Amino acid sequence: MNIILFDPTEIGKPLSKRDERAVHLLKVLHKNIGDSFDAGVLGGNLGNGLIEAVRLDGIVFSLDVKESPPLRLPICVSVGFPRPIQLRRLLRDLSNFGVEAIDLVGTDMGEKSYRDTKLLIDGGARAALIEGAAQARDTRLPLLSAYTTLDDWLEERPWDRARDTFVSASGRDRNLRISPILVVADNVRPEGSFGLLNMMGRPVVIAVGSERGWSDRERDKLEEAGFLRLSMGNRALRTETACIAAVVLAMEKMGKLE
Amino acid sequence: MNIILFDPTEIGKPLSKRDERAVHLLKVLHKNIGDSFDAGVLGGNLGNGLIEAVRLDGIVFSLDVKESPPLRLPICVSVGFPRPIQLRRLLRDLSNFGVEAIDLVGTDMGEKSYRDTKLLIDGGARAALIEGAAQARDTRLPLLSAYTTLDDWLEERPWDRARDTFVSASGRDRNLRISPILVVADNVRPEGSFGLLNMMGRPVVIAVGSERGWSDRERDKLEEAGFLRLSMGNRALRTETACIAAVVLAMEKMGKLE
Repeated sequence: MNIILFDPTEIGKPLSKRDERAVHLLKVLHKNIGDSFDAGVLGGNLGNGLIEAVRLDGIVFSLDVKESPPLRLPICVSVGFPRPIQLRRLLRDLSNFGVEAIDLVGTDMGEKSYRDTKLLIDGGARAALIEGAAQARDTRLPLLSAYTTLDDWLEERPWDRARDTFVSASGRDRNLRISPILVVADNVRPEGSFGLLNMMGRPVVIAVGSERGWSDRERDKLEEAGFLRLSMGNRALRTETACIAAVVLAMEKMGKLE
Repeated sequence: MNIILFDPTEIGKPLSKRDERAVHLLKVLHKNIGDSFDAGVLGGNLGNGLIEAVRLDGIVFSLDVKESPPLRLPICVSVGFPRPIQLRRLLRDLSNFGVEAIDLVGTDMGEKSYRDTKLLIDGGARAALIEGAAQARDTRLPLLSAYTTLDDWLEERPWDRARDTFVSASGRDRNLRISPILVVADNVRPEGSFGLLNMMGRPVVIAVGSERGWSDRERDKLEEAGFLRLSMGNRALRTETACIAAVVLAMEKMGKLE
């Protein structure tokens, strides 16, 4: 937790001492009355928090947040529903990188029961996204969506809708729509390699299959929709590892690691 | 489990039906007497296994393994001891990529208790490495070592010893020693960026700190030993994510993703 993030609705109220952020402030960082700490408002600015009082009903704090959060990474990751425990970590890691959007997609060969994960309704998914953002000192979370099938996702083409950085990677001209590069991770029937792709200046949509990969029907559908099938080396990677690897490669190709 | 891996000592004996590989063969892959399956011998070759019989005392199988395993990736990752649960996943993922060696190192700011993980003595670490290799259809495991302090590691310079691919990335001339590029992931005091490094044709040693990063004393020690401090973007990544990201970038720079 490199920054303490607050929901806008939590401002002005004491933070319960049982809240994990309070535990982190008092027990890990050893903060006390009068101490300041790195803070941010979810969806808003960054800056400092100040502990005004530590009372029975919680920590009374004030915020001074004037700094803009970092730009989003113009990357949308679509991934076949992984196991719930892996989903948690994946959401945290993708949020850590600051990707724009995460689309969870039911695939032909994916385990159907993974779609019914409680994480999406019990706040677990949001908590994982917040954890990743806090690690990166970011206040903004990836936009998280779920689709029952790949067909639904391809039909909706959510990457065509205005999403923050998908409108403009620079954030300057919000009306200028740059069409994203559409790629699908596929080590079985690749047309090229991630390593050779040039993504400089373009947003990118990366589709990663579920554990058992893509069906040929899905490969055809993706091709029709304009997706390039790219491999990442010749070793089969785990779904979550493939997502992280693809994001890192896209960042590198975009010059976002320099 | 994309391949069933056997220890050389297990060959010629029935595989207990309670073993997770037997469960995978019978319950997940629905294999039966006379069926073949992808198999490999740890440290040896790849090929096919054949189920000769399914008896009370286990699955009787024969192996026909003639294919050489894939080349190791000429990358050594040194990482500050992470939490045991994260260590397991990290070992699995690094083995999935096929790195040559993994050195676990106690760092100044790392949690001392993490060094005493039972994983290194109870077989848990080896199981994680095997899981990653099986995912990648590889029979070989990264060489795993542990060092109490960074100083010990830097003094021993294990990358100078003959390690499989560190001798030659091509595997052709085992006597030709190519000196590795030494890099340390450091977003706090970087001298350059991973994205700009050219590693083509050279093995690489990547040092990643523990959760709380490097001490300035360690930075100086690493610099003395010839390590370049490189950043990966401007967001603080989790230790395990930073390891994966660094390996993927090194692979890309080596042309191993093409």
